[in-house]
Amino acid sequence: VEAIEPSLELYRDQFQLTVAHREVVEEQGVEAVLLDLGENHVELLAPLGAETPVGKFLAKNGPGLHHVAYQVENIDVTLDALKQAGLRLIDEQPRIGIRGSRVAFMHPRSTDGVLTEIVEPAAGAGEH
Amino acid sequence: VEAIEPSLELYRDQFQLTVAHREVVEEQGVEAVLLDLGENHVELLAPLGAETPVGKFLAKNGPGLHHVAYQVENIDVTLDALKQAGLRLIDEQPRIGIRGSRVAFMHPRSTDGVLTEIVEPAAGAGEH
Repeated sequence: VEAIEPSLELYRDQFQLTVAHREVVEEQGVEAVLLDLGENHVELLAPLGAETPVGKFLAKNGPGLHHVAYQVENIDVTLDALKQAGLRLIDEQPRIGIRGSRVAFMHPRSTDGVLTEIVEPAAGAGEH
Repeated sequence: VEAIEPSLELYRDQFQLTVAHREVVEEQGVEAVLLDLGENHVELLAPLGAETPVGKFLAKNGPGLHHVAYQVENIDVTLDALKQAGLRLIDEQPRIGIRGSRVAFMHPRSTDGVLTEIVEPAAGAGEH
């Protein structure tokens, strides 16, 4: 989304989801809000600037669905398994994501056009 | 996706998700597969023909994220609430979706560019 607040009115106030976490993730150039949805989350992402990955996505596509993230127990083991399966990765090594998690993205060419992330939560940080 | 089988190799065999349901939904012009993901599902959709909504989506965008669906207890009550909140709807009245569910779509212009569906499962059919 272009900005967090108008989307919070939709997701928090209209859809009545509960905000679980809000954070500026400088390394990824985004402000992020996690809203609880059962065991999972809806994540709102707004860019910190036009030259960030999400800023470029918005310029090209407009607002919409950006990626899907799956929680994994051990991101190193999963990354190795994905490599061995021949999947193309954006991140060969994990980076730091929201709430101190370790994250990595697969390339959409390997995942039916869906930008796909795996997330290993930080110890004690709860689910992504 | 263009076809279900190659995506099943990714989601079932590589990501090791469990197939919960598979159905041709003629009314929506798709073949659909639900894979379990915690309390939720990943749904694979392949068009029955080029002139279906998903066929047109693929021709315009290529494969990728199509929509997000939220389970609701009573779709009539939720539709009324969304209308009163001023959200633009594609379906003013519910239609029949997968597994005999009742479904309706909101317009992406009201939902930050995200095609958004609400689903009331059929009694006894389990979650969408």
